[in-house]
This record gives sequence, C-alpha cells and structure tokens, in this order.
Amino acid sequence: MSKVLNVAIAGLGTVGAEVARQLIENADHFTHQSGRAVRIVAVSARDAEKARGFSMAGVDFCADALALASREDVDVVLELIGGEAGVAYDLVLGALKNGRHVITANKALLAHHGHALAQMAEEAGLTLAAEASVAGGIPVIKMLKESLAGNQITRITGILNGTCNYILSVMQHEHREFADVLAEAQKLGYAEADPSFDIDGIDAAHKLAILAAMGFGTAPALDAVAVRGIRDITRMDMENARDLGCTIRLLGEVERGDSGAISAEIRPILLPLESGLAKIDGALNAVSFAGAPIGAVTVVGPGAGAGATASAVLADVVDLAMGRHSPLFGVPAKSLKQGNSKTTNLSAPTPAHPPGRMEKHFIRLKVYDRPGVLADITAILRGHDISVESINQPSRAEDGVNGAVPVILTTHEVKPKAVAAATAEMAELEAVLAEPVIFPIYHGA
Amino acid sequence: MSKVLNVAIAGLGTVGAEVARQLIENADHFTHQSGRAVRIVAVSARDAEKARGFSMAGVDFCADALALASREDVDVVLELIGGEAGVAYDLVLGALKNGRHVITANKALLAHHGHALAQMAEEAGLTLAAEASVAGGIPVIKMLKESLAGNQITRITGILNGTCNYILSVMQHEHREFADVLAEAQKLGYAEADPSFDIDGIDAAHKLAILAAMGFGTAPALDAVAVRGIRDITRMDMENARDLGCTIRLLGEVERGDSGAISAEIRPILLPLESGLAKIDGALNAVSFAGAPIGAVTVVGPGAGAGATASAVLADVVDLAMGRHSPLFGVPAKSLKQGNSKTTNLSAPTPAHPPGRMEKHFIRLKVYDRPGVLADITAILRGHDISVESINQPSRAEDGVNGAVPVILTTHEVKPKAVAAATAEMAELEAVLAEPVIFPIYHGA
Repeated sequence: MSKVLNVAIAGLGTVGAEVARQLIENADHFTHQSGRAVRIVAVSARDAEKARGFSMAGVDFCADALALASREDVDVVLELIGGEAGVAYDLVLGALKNGRHVITANKALLAHHGHALAQMAEEAGLTLAAEASVAGGIPVIKMLKESLAGNQITRITGILNGTCNYILSVMQHEHREFADVLAEAQKLGYAEADPSFDIDGIDAAHKLAILAAMGFGTAPALDAVAVRGIRDITRMDMENARDLGCTIRLLGEVERGDSGAISAEIRPILLPLESGLAKIDGALNAVSFAGAPIGAVTVVGPGAGAGATASAVLADVVDLAMGRHSPLFGVPAKSLKQGNSKTTNLSAPTPAHPPGRMEKHFIRLKVYDRPGVLADITAILRGHDISVESINQPSRAEDGVNGAVPVILTTHEVKPKAVAAATAEMAELEAVLAEPVIFPIYHGA
Repeated sequence: MSKVLNVAIAGLGTVGAEVARQLIENADHFTHQSGRAVRIVAVSARDAEKARGFSMAGVDFCADALALASREDVDVVLELIGGEAGVAYDLVLGALKNGRHVITANKALLAHHGHALAQMAEEAGLTLAAEASVAGGIPVIKMLKESLAGNQITRITGILNGTCNYILSVMQHEHREFADVLAEAQKLGYAEADPSFDIDGIDAAHKLAILAAMGFGTAPALDAVAVRGIRDITRMDMENARDLGCTIRLLGEVERGDSGAISAEIRPILLPLESGLAKIDGALNAVSFAGAPIGAVTVVGPGAGAGATASAVLADVVDLAMGRHSPLFGVPAKSLKQGNSKTTNLSAPTPAHPPGRMEKHFIRLKVYDRPGVLADITAILRGHDISVESINQPSRAEDGVNGAVPVILTTHEVKPKAVAAATAEMAELEAVLAEPVIFPIYHGA
C-alpha cells in the first residue's frame, strides 16, 4: 500500500479542475488520509493553456482523452467529461479493457450502460466508482451501498435536481412565473442554455435509476422511470398550493410495493410546508432512505457545484487508494435482477404513468363562471368514485378568457388512473376551458 | 473471501438482540451483500433463557462474555454491552489481544480509551469499527471518515442526544416544564431512571469527542469538551426564546478556529425557528459537517433505538465481511495529535468554558420591579462594552417572589467572557433576585 496511486483526469471543466487543484495543493492531506501518495500523471482537456489558478507542473497534457486509457503509468482514470456516449463512454470502456480502475461522475453513462460496465469491471477485478454521479457532494451512494447494507430498503425519496429546485423555490418565495425564473437561472448559471435535460426531469431520472438499482438490486432501468418535468407549473399553481399549506417541488420516488414490484417516478408534487422536503430551498438536494431495521435517514447538501462534486470524486479516490472496494451497485452486477423494462435511450420525457398507489390529488380547472358547472364536475367525480376533500374558487383573475374562473379541487386518496379518467371526462365539458392540471399531493414517508 | 465470517455477540439487550435477529432471519441478504455467509457462533447474555421471538438454535450461549474473546472459532466480536470500563473494556482488549476484530457501539469506551485501543488494533492489523457509537443509525462516522476524506473539515455541529432533544421539543410544543416532561420521558422509556448521563450532556460529549477526533485528526479529548446540560431550562426560557423567534436545543459544536485551536462544546443554545436544526423534533439526531471543498452536508435520522443502532452495527459487519477497512479515527491512531488536554474520566459535567468566538447572547434576569433597575443593568453592560440588541419585560408572572419581574436581554455579538463578567456583576445588584441565566444564540453555519 505504500505505492503511489497514479491518477489521470479526463476533463478539466469546473469539477475536473477542482479535483486536480485539491490533489495538487493538498497533496499532504491525501497522503495522510490514504497512507500513500496520490499523484496526477496526466490530464486531458480541450484547452491545455487555460489559466486555472494553480500549477500543474509535471503533469502531462494529452489532447486525446482516449490516450489516458492506455497509459502504462496510470492506475485510475477519472472520467469527468460527461455524456452517455462519445468520448466518455469510449474512455471508460477503454480504461476497463486495459485494466485501469475508473472513477466517474457521469450519471447518464451509468443510467444507460452501468450494468454492462460494472460487469466488465468486476470480471476484471477493477473498481468502477461513481459517488459523484448522484446528488453531487452528498454521499448518497456510499450511504446506500455500504452504510445501509444491513437494511431491506423499502423506499428512496429525493430532490435530485438542483436546477428545478432552485426554480421552484424562487417561484414559491418570490411569487414569480416559471419562464421568468428560468431566464434568470440561465443568466446566473443555475440552468443551461438548453434547460430541457434538467427541467423535463431527465437528469433526475438518471439519478433515480441509479439509486433504484443500488437500493433494490435491479439493473438500472431508465425507461421504467415515469417522468414529468416542471415546465407546466404556473405561479397560480404555486399560489393555490400555498392556499392548501403546500409548496410544489420536483420529487423522485422509488419504492417496492406490496406485490414486490418496483415503481420509480420523477414528478412535481405538492409538499406540505411543514414537511422536511418542503424546506429544501435553492439548489440543494436531499435524499431520504427508508428501510428496515433503520427506519429512515435523510441527507441534505449541495447537489452540484465544483467543490461539492469534487468532494465526492475525491472520496472515491481515497477509497481506491486505501483498497476499499464495493461493486458499483453494491452487489455483483451479474446478480442484478432485470428492472421493469430494458434500458433504452430516454430521448424524450416519458409521460407519467404512476403506479397504483392511492394518493390525494390537486386538480386545477379553468371554467366558465356559470350555474351548474360545479354540479357537472362533482357528478363526474362521483361517477369515478372519487371523494372530494375541498373545492375552492380562488378570486385570482384568470389570464385570457373573459368570465373564466379557476376551480381548485383536492381529492381524498384515490388511484391516479381514476383521476386521469375523471379529468379527461371533465375536459369534454363545454364549460371547462383548458386541459385540467393535476398534481399528486405528497403522502408522507 | 468465500470463507464464512464467524461472529460473536456480547450483550443481547435491545440492540444486540436486533443484530442477532437480522443476521439470522435475513441470513441470505447478508450472504448476498457480503459475498460470504455471516454466521453467529456464540453470544453472551445475562439471561440465556429469555424469549426473544426468534430462534438462536445452533448458537452457543456463554455465561462469561470474556470467553468470547478467546474462542478459536470467532473472527469478530460485537461488543454491545456498554460502559467505559468493566466487562466491555476487558472484552475489547482481550479480543484485540487474541487477534479478533471488534465492532462496538460503545461511545463511552471510545471517548475514554479509543486512542489506545485503535493503536492496538492497527498494530495487530485488526479492524476496530464503531459506526453505532455516534448518532445511532445515522451513518455519520463513515460519512466523516470516508465520504468526506477529501475535505478539510472546519466545523461539526450536531444534535447528538435524543433524550435531550425529545425533552426540549416537547417543552417547546406543549408548553410544559422540564421536570414534568422528564418524568414522562422516563415513563415512556426515552430517558433512564438516572437521567444525568443524558441530560447533563455527558453522552453528547462522548459522541462529540469521537467526531472531533475523526474530523480534526486529534486523539479524543473528552475533558476538553465544555459541557452544559439542560436541567436549568425552564418553560419560561422556552417561551422567551419563542418571543425571539427561537427554540432551545442541546447542540454539540466542534470547530477549528482561526488560530488552529480546536474548541468543542455541548450546550443549550437558542436556535432560530427557521433554521434546519430547530426543526429536528423528538428523539431524532442531526449532524452537519462543514468543510472545503464540499461546503456543508447534513444528515438526519434516528439517533437511538434497537433497529437504527443495529443498522449501524450491521454496516460494520458487512464492511468487515467485504474486506473494507478504515482506521477507527480515519487516519492511523499513532498519527493523531494530542487533543487539548489528556483524556481523563469525566465524572461530572465540566462547567462550560466556551471558546473566544463572538456570539449573540440571551440573558434572563429576575428583578424587583422598581425604578432605576434597568439603568443599573444597562450601565453594567456598557461597562463591559456589550451592545444590547433587545430588552423585554414579558408580562408572564414570575414564580415565588412578590414584585419580581423577568427581564430578557439579548446582546449583539460579544465574547462569552464579557457576558460572564457582566452577569456576575449584575448578580451583585440588590434588585437582581436570582442567578442570571445565559444562553448563546446560534450564529449559523
């Protein structure tokens, strides 16, 4: 164990550069923590000349990231390029083929190809580690795979996308519209120029697919994750939620139902303001694990950012240097059961198809304000055996149509399918002026 | 790695029995998680005949726990007896001397003897693991030692004692007196018949000493932890805190100051109601780690209880079965720097001697309601250069003395020493009828 651990870093973006800086500037710390020196021997980056504020003297710059996979002097490749395919995939594959350990922050890669890559690594006796791939700096992967290894996991719940949580918490606290806050988030660097990966829930779905695999011993099954993003949430929805003592957040949930079937969903949901998750503001992430015998444990922290993500990558580096190993998914990849469907490319957000569990629902309708409308609506609800908890007609002006008013319904616990059928029927009413908007209401841990 | 891991369990109290039950009833799970079978070969318990609701067929019962240390067929001893000395100490020492790994939940043992025991284990190439010793089921130790290994830790803050947190949160929400809530907590099993270990802050101090050692690379230094318990907190204090938008909780804090000196304290503190820690209710624990480059991460969960504590013990078992090892304090015990003072027996709560950091303070006085009193008090504050933020005379009736009224002062940020000196001077005033009560006000992360 006294041998130096030789590291190659592919990608010197904000995370890669921070990892390099930490390993160089705090080299003594890493030697002390690991019992051996950790040395960067080579890096690849688009721009070798870019000023990064610290010295990389003695480190080879390779123009071609793939060259890192085959260097004789490298023990581990840190893949910090990103993307499910292309260079990142080729590099990880090449490194494993050449007998190099791999540490990656790449959730898309693992959600799509993690099962095969993990099998490859395990057959070759190599480590493939990915703490940084889910929830940035929050060490959810080690917690789930190692700290909770003695538990039967029943449920994982999380705020997994900082961009969405930032947008929704600003909408909540500053009473602003989605498009307005998104534009500001883009200006501030909290959202990408093309924000769809985040706001359509795809990024969160990648992370949930990875957590689901680790928690339930199944191969990652990305297209078994029902996904709904946050594009259609309005300021009025947020205010109506507040009237009900709630806020709206994008939540990921995966659980094992009574039948043993696993359901995974990313969706906006009404959270009671007094619940712990409703208090996670800004770009923070939070993940709760429920299981037996532990009960439940929740961890909150920075889900993104150079420093936080670097912290997670560095934890994997120290683990490797110390000889601590766990399989990528906690148990041998060849023992993983197939998920609910085969892993395919999630090119577009899948329509939500929530599982059969009973939940309360919030329904927003836009109706002509005339006698008999409520009677028609409640008759439809009765026809679908849906019990109403509240009906409100908030006095806020509806945009556009003259004489139109909003109606906010909340239901008692009911199957999502019944709500979908009832609202489809409501949409056919002449007095209903727009597609009904539906959100589930959080049912608690 | 295909060899069976043979386990001995010393102590079949609530935690030990739950660990045994999990390993027996979920044996397949542990084999799958660990890649090898985990088998209980022997246990020791006061009562071999006690009905535990599951079968321990094939497991040897030893009347003498110490016999477990020298059995040839045991790989690891789980010490779940407790106590800093006596059988627990002799057993751990004996097991390590005989070349057996040790997993323990014993915070008192480690706070007092952890440094020496860790050195012994490390010299012999053995694992001494203790996830369950701090914060029960919350995996704070692995998080600190492994997940945050790439960070320079600057501060650890935590609600570390579930009994105190239960009492204080019931006082807060049900407007009740300390003694009343304590008696109820004893009846419900949340507090011991002799509650001093918990309510005087000693248990929390043990845990903080262990976390401080892991976070800052120092030997555990229990009597360097300034400790104040919660006995003197009244219903009126809680209500005055609420008037200030705060609650009161017992908080542990350890940090590295600008000078590099480490200060550690357990003390009741006023927490703003909107802060995350103020929302930790009941017997939950919460721990926040701050450092670079991560920023901060917080974990919340059950700090006690059979299931939660068993979860932590079982994580150590799986780590050992998988060959994952980290030194007890994260780095080799022989490399630990000495703490602020030598480790001695903490037989009584040490008077608080907070470090020099500036903090806001809450001061409760009981005074005769007559002209000139406030002038005397504010003159004393001015004499100590203490800037007042607020003065209130809540109209609540003071118990006992006729004509007595409470005065609640809050200060701007000031050295604790100045507050101590000023309040000592106030206590000398004829019109001040009782010892002033002082709480710091949380200064945020």
